[in-house]
Amino acid sequence: MTTARRQLFAGSALVASALALPASVQAQAPAASGQAPSGQAPGFYRFRLGDFTVTTVHDGSFRRPVEGFVRDVPTAEVQDLLAGQGLPRETLTVPFTITFVQTPRGLIAFDAGTGGQMAPTAGQMMGNMRAAGLDPAAVTAVVVSHFHGDHITGLTTAQDEVVFPNAEVIVPAAEWAFWTDEANAARAPQAQRGTFANTARRFAPYRARIRQIADGAEVLPGIRAVAAYGHTPGHTIYHVADGGAQMMFLADLTNRPEVNAMRPDWRIVFDMDGAMATETRRRILDRVSSEGMLVTGYHFPFPARGTFLRTEHGYRFAPADWSGVV
Amino acid sequence: MTTARRQLFAGSALVASALALPASVQAQAPAASGQAPSGQAPGFYRFRLGDFTVTTVHDGSFRRPVEGFVRDVPTAEVQDLLAGQGLPRETLTVPFTITFVQTPRGLIAFDAGTGGQMAPTAGQMMGNMRAAGLDPAAVTAVVVSHFHGDHITGLTTAQDEVVFPNAEVIVPAAEWAFWTDEANAARAPQAQRGTFANTARRFAPYRARIRQIADGAEVLPGIRAVAAYGHTPGHTIYHVADGGAQMMFLADLTNRPEVNAMRPDWRIVFDMDGAMATETRRRILDRVSSEGMLVTGYHFPFPARGTFLRTEHGYRFAPADWSGVV
Repeated sequence: MTTARRQLFAGSALVASALALPASVQAQAPAASGQAPSGQAPGFYRFRLGDFTVTTVHDGSFRRPVEGFVRDVPTAEVQDLLAGQGLPRETLTVPFTITFVQTPRGLIAFDAGTGGQMAPTAGQMMGNMRAAGLDPAAVTAVVVSHFHGDHITGLTTAQDEVVFPNAEVIVPAAEWAFWTDEANAARAPQAQRGTFANTARRFAPYRARIRQIADGAEVLPGIRAVAAYGHTPGHTIYHVADGGAQMMFLADLTNRPEVNAMRPDWRIVFDMDGAMATETRRRILDRVSSEGMLVTGYHFPFPARGTFLRTEHGYRFAPADWSGVV
Repeated sequence: MTTARRQLFAGSALVASALALPASVQAQAPAASGQAPSGQAPGFYRFRLGDFTVTTVHDGSFRRPVEGFVRDVPTAEVQDLLAGQGLPRETLTVPFTITFVQTPRGLIAFDAGTGGQMAPTAGQMMGNMRAAGLDPAAVTAVVVSHFHGDHITGLTTAQDEVVFPNAEVIVPAAEWAFWTDEANAARAPQAQRGTFANTARRFAPYRARIRQIADGAEVLPGIRAVAAYGHTPGHTIYHVADGGAQMMFLADLTNRPEVNAMRPDWRIVFDMDGAMATETRRRILDRVSSEGMLVTGYHFPFPARGTFLRTEHGYRFAPADWSGVV
């Protein structure tokens, strides 16, 4: 299906094609007599936050070995932590979930998904947006946490066409400064070079409508930037509030919380500044757990909504109850 | 919506009417320009078990005070346990989830939901079955765990019409014996009298196709009854296996696992024989946690699928990862 979607992306009528229902949604039609139904429920979840409506949308996942994921910790210790939470020992499945916030003034996307261009097990965002009634053309702002590929590749198609034709793109100034600096690119280690190139590529067709924002800025009414540097130089999370209701989109403050929140001091391979990332992680998780604040995260288990609870060694993610009523 | 569904149930063309999409599913159509989409994703989740396909289907929930839920334990202690897992202190939300198993030989429902006749916050099973492509007329067997109202009321409409016109109804012999015994009914405490009356009412239109089964029986190919007495006199759970894959439908072995599995010795108000229920709970949770067996449960947080992990005082339910691919 991912290949099929890639092929859809090859056409110029991108948005219309990408809105076609994926097989998983089509399969929800009643099964013909004798035919067992086989499709999955669409991967979105919706809830209210004051007068805002929040929808988390699943983009699939990628899989990597547990070995090598955490720096300077024996693999067996990481595996024991995972197994103690019911997760596999050998393979880490890292989900991708985009948080959309509908306000009276527009539809905001927090990050942009993989665009079906990164892993055969990812690229479900467009189909799930369609199932959720979310039109890419209705997105008025894409608010970006940081520039790792799984967060910005979905801004454009494989043919470099814009996916959100009517959206302003809001980026942390510190992140923009780092990844658009040619001197940084020139001295970057091999593992980072792709991110420099991908940054240039994905933002290019949006260049006339990119807005850089500073830590603490109210980037849109009710949406405030909160610096969470370390994972990348400008990694930023966002506080969302309406009336008395509030939540925080935590982006990559943690990868899977079963690892990074349970052991906030562990440095994972994706944290560019491990020391700063762990300090940031402890500080923010302390805040959201103390306040019992509702959070969403990019790599949390779907539907990626819940609270954090303090534990002996760190913080446990408690998924909020699913509700059939928004 | 529940009221609307109740009104639908008032007509004689029950099944066709009840299959109409609920508002929550209809609302997934693309939003008109300027209209914010508002519907929830349909409440089903699908996964494979060997050549079987399992679908858990949400029927909604009911809410009750935390106070009075657990016998002989101070309310504050129960509240602390809930809050320590991110759940509210005052109100317990108890979800209902029906497990459907499609085998090459037929479609099996484990219990029957509330039929929209028990709580304004429940009665979503029909709409969610429709969204999942599951037709009540395609159900070949309803396998019943026990006769509490939230498990059998959905067998018939408010007008006593059958909801599963082509299904055999399979019941634990011990449960049948208890709730159909007029002497038991005559001496029952007030709180149980409704269950005797509801048992007679809900099974009546199925009387020609009720099959009583004993502990340990293979009730259908791959489906085995496992006595789990205590919650009710004949409460029975079911082991489901195909090829090398297996799972257990735990029914009401626990109410919310955040209470009953974390503290298996606590006796809740719904357990008819508290001592037997706690002994059964410990024995079965010990088995499924030792084996790492996949389980579903009737009152687990949706999608109600995961494993149990042993903790210091009991067992913690670990929801399995959601997957966009079946």
